[in-house]
Amino acid sequence: MLLNCDLGESFGNWKMGLDDQVMSYIDQANIACGFHAGDPDVIQHTLALAKAHNIEIGAHPAYPDLQGFGRRSMAHSHDEIVNLLHYQIGALSGMAAVQQLELSYVKPHGALYNDMMGKEAVFVAVLDAIAQFPRPLKLMLLATSEAPGYQQKAQEAGVELLFEAFADRRYLDDGRLSPRSMPDAVLDSQQTLEQVELLAKEGAVITVSGNKLPLKADTLCVHGDNPHAVAMVKQIRDLLP
Amino acid sequence: MLLNCDLGESFGNWKMGLDDQVMSYIDQANIACGFHAGDPDVIQHTLALAKAHNIEIGAHPAYPDLQGFGRRSMAHSHDEIVNLLHYQIGALSGMAAVQQLELSYVKPHGALYNDMMGKEAVFVAVLDAIAQFPRPLKLMLLATSEAPGYQQKAQEAGVELLFEAFADRRYLDDGRLSPRSMPDAVLDSQQTLEQVELLAKEGAVITVSGNKLPLKADTLCVHGDNPHAVAMVKQIRDLLP
Amino acid sequence: MLLNCDLGESFGNWKMGLDDQVMSYIDQANIACGFHAGDPDVIQHTLALAKAHNIEIGAHPAYPDLQGFGRRSMAHSHDEIVNLLHYQIGALSGMAAVQQLELSYVKPHGALYNDMMGKEAVFVAVLDAIAQFPRPLKLMLLATSEAPGYQQKAQEAGVELLFEAFADRRYLDDGRLSPRSMPDAVLDSQQTLEQVELLAKEGAVITVSGNKLPLKADTLCVHGDNPHAVAMVKQIRDLLP
Amino acid sequence: MLLNCDLGESFGNWKMGLDDQVMSYIDQANIACGFHAGDPDVIQHTLALAKAHNIEIGAHPAYPDLQGFGRRSMAHSHDEIVNLLHYQIGALSGMAAVQQLELSYVKPHGALYNDMMGKEAVFVAVLDAIAQFPRPLKLMLLATSEAPGYQQKAQEAGVELLFEAFADRRYLDDGRLSPRSMPDAVLDSQQTLEQVELLAKEGAVITVSGNKLPLKADTLCVHGDNPHAVAMVKQIRDLLP
Repeated sequence: MLLNCDLGESFGNWKMGLDDQVMSYIDQANIACGFHAGDPDVIQHTLALAKAHNIEIGAHPAYPDLQGFGRRSMAHSHDEIVNLLHYQIGALSGMAAVQQLELSYVKPHGALYNDMMGKEAVFVAVLDAIAQFPRPLKLMLLATSEAPGYQQKAQEAGVELLFEAFADRRYLDDGRLSPRSMPDAVLDSQQTLEQVELLAKEGAVITVSGNKLPLKADTLCVHGDNPHAVAMVKQIRDLLP
Repeated sequence: MLLNCDLGESFGNWKMGLDDQVMSYIDQANIACGFHAGDPDVIQHTLALAKAHNIEIGAHPAYPDLQGFGRRSMAHSHDEIVNLLHYQIGALSGMAAVQQLELSYVKPHGALYNDMMGKEAVFVAVLDAIAQFPRPLKLMLLATSEAPGYQQKAQEAGVELLFEAFADRRYLDDGRLSPRSMPDAVLDSQQTLEQVELLAKEGAVITVSGNKLPLKADTLCVHGDNPHAVAMVKQIRDLLP
Repeated sequence: MLLNCDLGESFGNWKMGLDDQVMSYIDQANIACGFHAGDPDVIQHTLALAKAHNIEIGAHPAYPDLQGFGRRSMAHSHDEIVNLLHYQIGALSGMAAVQQLELSYVKPHGALYNDMMGKEAVFVAVLDAIAQFPRPLKLMLLATSEAPGYQQKAQEAGVELLFEAFADRRYLDDGRLSPRSMPDAVLDSQQTLEQVELLAKEGAVITVSGNKLPLKADTLCVHGDNPHAVAMVKQIRDLLP
Repeated sequence: MLLNCDLGESFGNWKMGLDDQVMSYIDQANIACGFHAGDPDVIQHTLALAKAHNIEIGAHPAYPDLQGFGRRSMAHSHDEIVNLLHYQIGALSGMAAVQQLELSYVKPHGALYNDMMGKEAVFVAVLDAIAQFPRPLKLMLLATSEAPGYQQKAQEAGVELLFEAFADRRYLDDGRLSPRSMPDAVLDSQQTLEQVELLAKEGAVITVSGNKLPLKADTLCVHGDNPHAVAMVKQIRDLLP
């Protein structure tokens, strides 16, 4: 199981995330592409860091909403989603190529990620966009108990999937995340490490109702927002084989 | 001598230019990349038009200034220019690749174009950005009597140049354009056709002071803003061999 | 019955609407505030035009979405709506004050207008924003058969309402507009004039199913996008007492 | 001598400045208006903080450049400057009025501030904008040895000036600030306190060449970026009568 982290989410003068520190412990950098965070200078710097740490890179595209950090759902047509993905993936891909790097996957950000998981039309638009992109790119999405349904549509579109689990989020019985508005939606350090251990050993999580839910995850989403978060990632790294 | 035209300069609901009409008469489409005009949907549509007309495509990147249409000079460092060019060229290049198209050149837009012609540091930044981009791209710039100086720096950077002349603009004695603030800076239809003819036959223009100035141009910049402009392009096309 | 029109919807170099022509025939100018259209220069110019024509002015605020022209619904919290309304109303109000003008109403634009009519939480947020603004401002909204419900909430909030009807849109039986995706959603010229006449004389419209629906409208929304639209406004003006 | 500080420079999810802490020690809050920083939610929150601390508020408007934090000079015409000032002052003024607050001054931000000090045309545009605004607003600018020249133009325009000095910046012999690119441009803590003391007691600073330069300052610019900066402001506050 790999570790992935959202990176490059600074913008102009505003800094966010301890990217240089967390890069030491992760395998996959989800790099913001300028629509919810990231600007050409931030992207250049983030790519250079990823290169120095020799980690896999993916595009982390979003709805065009800097103020809302891409977390506000916006009504978009199929073609608008396809085009905004191509634009953002293209921009990141071009800047990566300048540094002799290649993208290997796409992980939609924020509201676009949630809409992809919740609305079939958005999922199809994301698949279409990735399938049309000339370089083969995998799509990273949430590992839920409905994975086979997503898997089938992806196969039809010719897109390979990467399922991710969350280290520090509590799961509902259907494998979706407990909404942040719920108490206990976010796990404490001890609970996080236990969840990671169970995922790594048994491929399962204990849900909010106490059930053990099998969850096949290729990669685990971690965070590098602050020193505590980075310390957690180091501990998670040490737990994994 | 080829004909090039700025295209894809609509944005969202705002339409600009008769792109579909002027495409019939030109060889090279300078496509806006989203910073002064163009959005992912406009870019997708413009690329499809260029593909249908089977014409060469180039990136038309700009300073980040939608309200000012990229026409207001903005202080940028060398690295900021390099990064904003890589981002915009990358975005357009990626969207082109989806349609099996490849960019062949870069023509900076508006204030970035003027700054490139007038400030060596900006010219060097543009050259560096293009030289670093993995796909070989030519740089389109203004044909002036100082062409050899630009040529030498470009050769050192390993970048091929495309010199452009303007069909409808009056020239100063040094081969620069008479500023739009001057009376008679823009030629009328008859004068435009005469200037094109002289450029095509003798590689020269008559300057504002009446001198005949040799001007070696690879391509001629024309406009498709309105029906009259498109009609002029058709007449110019007919004049050329 | 007054005539209102969306104005000031140019942005930077992009022109939209024949504002100076349509101003001759209308009573109320709904002026874009910069989030879906309009920039400080456009707003200044539009206010000057409204002053010259001595017509009433209102704020036409929107979700922050230039590319989507404010027509894409975006998830916003109550406070986000209140704050974006105060910002936009404040900006327009300040620019109006420079020209010795005062706003008298607010008409939300596009998706914000539709969300206000369709989601009670959005309507309440809009009412709260207007009630908190120190200058008394009316709220312009769609005249439907559910007007009494809106009226009651507005009275509780202390906000006066202006109900508007649409000259050129076909009505459903509940007084809402037939969606643009439906055939015949937009009336032709003859139908438009008939609808205006019936509204003016009897305060009613003929709905899509042929029913005569009473509709109390304080103002009629017209358009100034092109010469044909302006000519229609002139004819509508002549029809009204 | 009062203390002023740039505040409300967060944007969306990006936080900047310890506004709530530094507010305890200052007299004047220069509040960002959305063009270089600040969004409607940030502005609302900053105004509420200023109200709770009962301090004077001023508008801190900028060129439209979020990515560059308003620090990149942009070519703007006289009218463009006037209009962008009216828009930003209006927006902040309207949001302030909702909280029963009134602006008392304007301090241009970043490159606009520098351009105002260095280019007469920009200074005149700023004066014109403020003079046209219906509420009387003072203009905060840099106290230099050229103050009389600025004073005269301001009087002609009918605008009252507030001269500010900088607590932690080294001065050139003409009363301008030593550029940040110079070594020792920024004073250490001890030097800062000495400079404040001399300004308060004698109305003078020791310049980079060791001269004692008289400098009449109405207000002193301090910073609240981090805990150390806030601690310095507290010490400066204690130094002042």
